[in-house]
Amino acid sequence: MPETINETIETDVVIVGAGPVGLFAVFELGLLDLRAHVIDILDRPGGQCAELYPEKPIYDIPGLPEVTGQALTDNLLKQIAPFDPQFHFSTMVTALERQEDGRFRVETDAGETFLTKVIVIAAGGGSFQPKRPPVPEIEQYEGKSVFYAVRKIEAFRDRDVVIVGGGDSALDWTLNLEPVAKSVTLVHRRPEFRAAPDSVNKMWALEKEGRVKFRMGQLASLHGEDGELSKVVLKGAEGEEVLEADRLLPFFGLTMKLGPIADWGLNLDQNLIAVDTEKFETSEPGIFAIGDINTYPGKLKLILSGFHEAALMSHAAKRIVAPGERIIFQYTTSSTSLQKKLKAA
Amino acid sequence: MPETINETIETDVVIVGAGPVGLFAVFELGLLDLRAHVIDILDRPGGQCAELYPEKPIYDIPGLPEVTGQALTDNLLKQIAPFDPQFHFSTMVTALERQEDGRFRVETDAGETFLTKVIVIAAGGGSFQPKRPPVPEIEQYEGKSVFYAVRKIEAFRDRDVVIVGGGDSALDWTLNLEPVAKSVTLVHRRPEFRAAPDSVNKMWALEKEGRVKFRMGQLASLHGEDGELSKVVLKGAEGEEVLEADRLLPFFGLTMKLGPIADWGLNLDQNLIAVDTEKFETSEPGIFAIGDINTYPGKLKLILSGFHEAALMSHAAKRIVAPGERIIFQYTTSSTSLQKKLKAA
Repeated sequence: MPETINETIETDVVIVGAGPVGLFAVFELGLLDLRAHVIDILDRPGGQCAELYPEKPIYDIPGLPEVTGQALTDNLLKQIAPFDPQFHFSTMVTALERQEDGRFRVETDAGETFLTKVIVIAAGGGSFQPKRPPVPEIEQYEGKSVFYAVRKIEAFRDRDVVIVGGGDSALDWTLNLEPVAKSVTLVHRRPEFRAAPDSVNKMWALEKEGRVKFRMGQLASLHGEDGELSKVVLKGAEGEEVLEADRLLPFFGLTMKLGPIADWGLNLDQNLIAVDTEKFETSEPGIFAIGDINTYPGKLKLILSGFHEAALMSHAAKRIVAPGERIIFQYTTSSTSLQKKLKAA
Repeated sequence: MPETINETIETDVVIVGAGPVGLFAVFELGLLDLRAHVIDILDRPGGQCAELYPEKPIYDIPGLPEVTGQALTDNLLKQIAPFDPQFHFSTMVTALERQEDGRFRVETDAGETFLTKVIVIAAGGGSFQPKRPPVPEIEQYEGKSVFYAVRKIEAFRDRDVVIVGGGDSALDWTLNLEPVAKSVTLVHRRPEFRAAPDSVNKMWALEKEGRVKFRMGQLASLHGEDGELSKVVLKGAEGEEVLEADRLLPFFGLTMKLGPIADWGLNLDQNLIAVDTEKFETSEPGIFAIGDINTYPGKLKLILSGFHEAALMSHAAKRIVAPGERIIFQYTTSSTSLQKKLKAA
């Protein structure tokens, strides 16, 4: 397939979110012959489940007494494989508009355009976004000299780098950038860290050798021009200190934001999307919300709940995609036609 | 424990039905520290799932791409083991009454009495009951000379037994009663059977030796006095035939009946129990219905749906058992207190 930008993909359903609930939606839609494309801001399937606790066991998935987030994700990928879902990772929906023919036009930051009859929002707590430190005017430096992730180590070569934070990211990048950068200064409120002890020990060793600096304190202000940082001012127990710095890496953790979904005109209730309990449809016909992102009376934010919601949503989606067609409710245990679909993989 | 009849068991919750949904309810209740007794008419856990398709794969349990009814049951039993559920098999609830203190008094045909704050009906399609052949006045003979199951072979010694049916039960009992009964006549509409070929071959061999009789036809009428059968009239292609018979075993398959639950005064909708979608509570406060036996807008009879309903029901049950107590919603992945409960087994 040639690499075309702005190609238009026509499909039955676009699912926003490739967490466990978005993945299982592919299965329930597939049983009803609906084809789905799945978009996720992360670079792999599994959502929070694989991102936040890939190795931690989950105990409350029915029939799986103990399963890790990664294993659950892998199981679901196997389960939905017969329906050949099309994934679009590291991708964010940037625009959503209803067309005259009733379909939705969906655009992404990767340059794709979808025309779809149904949208399923399965975006969990929203998008993972780095927390911004409470420092005036930091926005002006973002993407130029202040970064929340290291994409290319080379971008830090021969730079005076200040890293702020006490977790694994802060420690790991202190160790990894030290051989490359002109200088690395790690800043944290305390001399204790929530990071792998091994990394902490290595950092202290480098600090003793004078190869990295450690400062106890907090970010007070940034100074520079046109987004290019020249100085970082710290506030510590003993007053202010000015550091020469042309790169700043604050690692204040990730937060979940609803992101552009907040602008889609859906009825929201405390940053959650209100849905009915028959179809799990939002205030906008044809747009459904399932999993942690929705709310209704009795809602529990369980993976299990999203699975159930995916099933009921799929029957409603079928009625939109194939209006008038009779839906035959079948069991995978007894229906040879469903079994054929499942074995087609 | 001494064998006491009419012992009274006090508990938080009585679950009626030990199918997958009833089993998983033990788990969700257990996470909230609610203790459950589980009653089932069958002699083992698993309900329809283990009874009707123990070896057939189910494909639509999320995270389990392919699992047999028996394996799913085994997994669920393992998952709920930490909560030490008390099972009462081969037992039917015979009476249900609300006490002055608000609790329910539940009586069973096994002579047990429960005092419980909450009842959860997870009875699937209802109770398995043998189908009654469409023969006038057959009720008068039931339990005296007409039986739908063989409890004791000795009850058929030296009797003229008529067995009606074309499945495994009919064939098996033809073979097993032949050495004991005075005579055995197998009646079926056709000379073909839906039974193990080996049993069919054995039956034809006995028939050739004159040790059992086979008649093609249907039951037309029964004759006898005070419930004691003396003659069975068959209707065949060549007219009627009278058989001397003092025992009749019709094997017309099993059907699902709501059973005594129909008399509990709950709002029913086409033999299903109407519930809300917030708590899955019936029209009677404190009585919940989850799984295939309930109905609400959008309801799909999926095992998955019952699992989700069990979770939401449990939170409502907790509010009844411990009114005023704050429910802390916790995740099994992150809560050490939940993990302790789960590891206690």
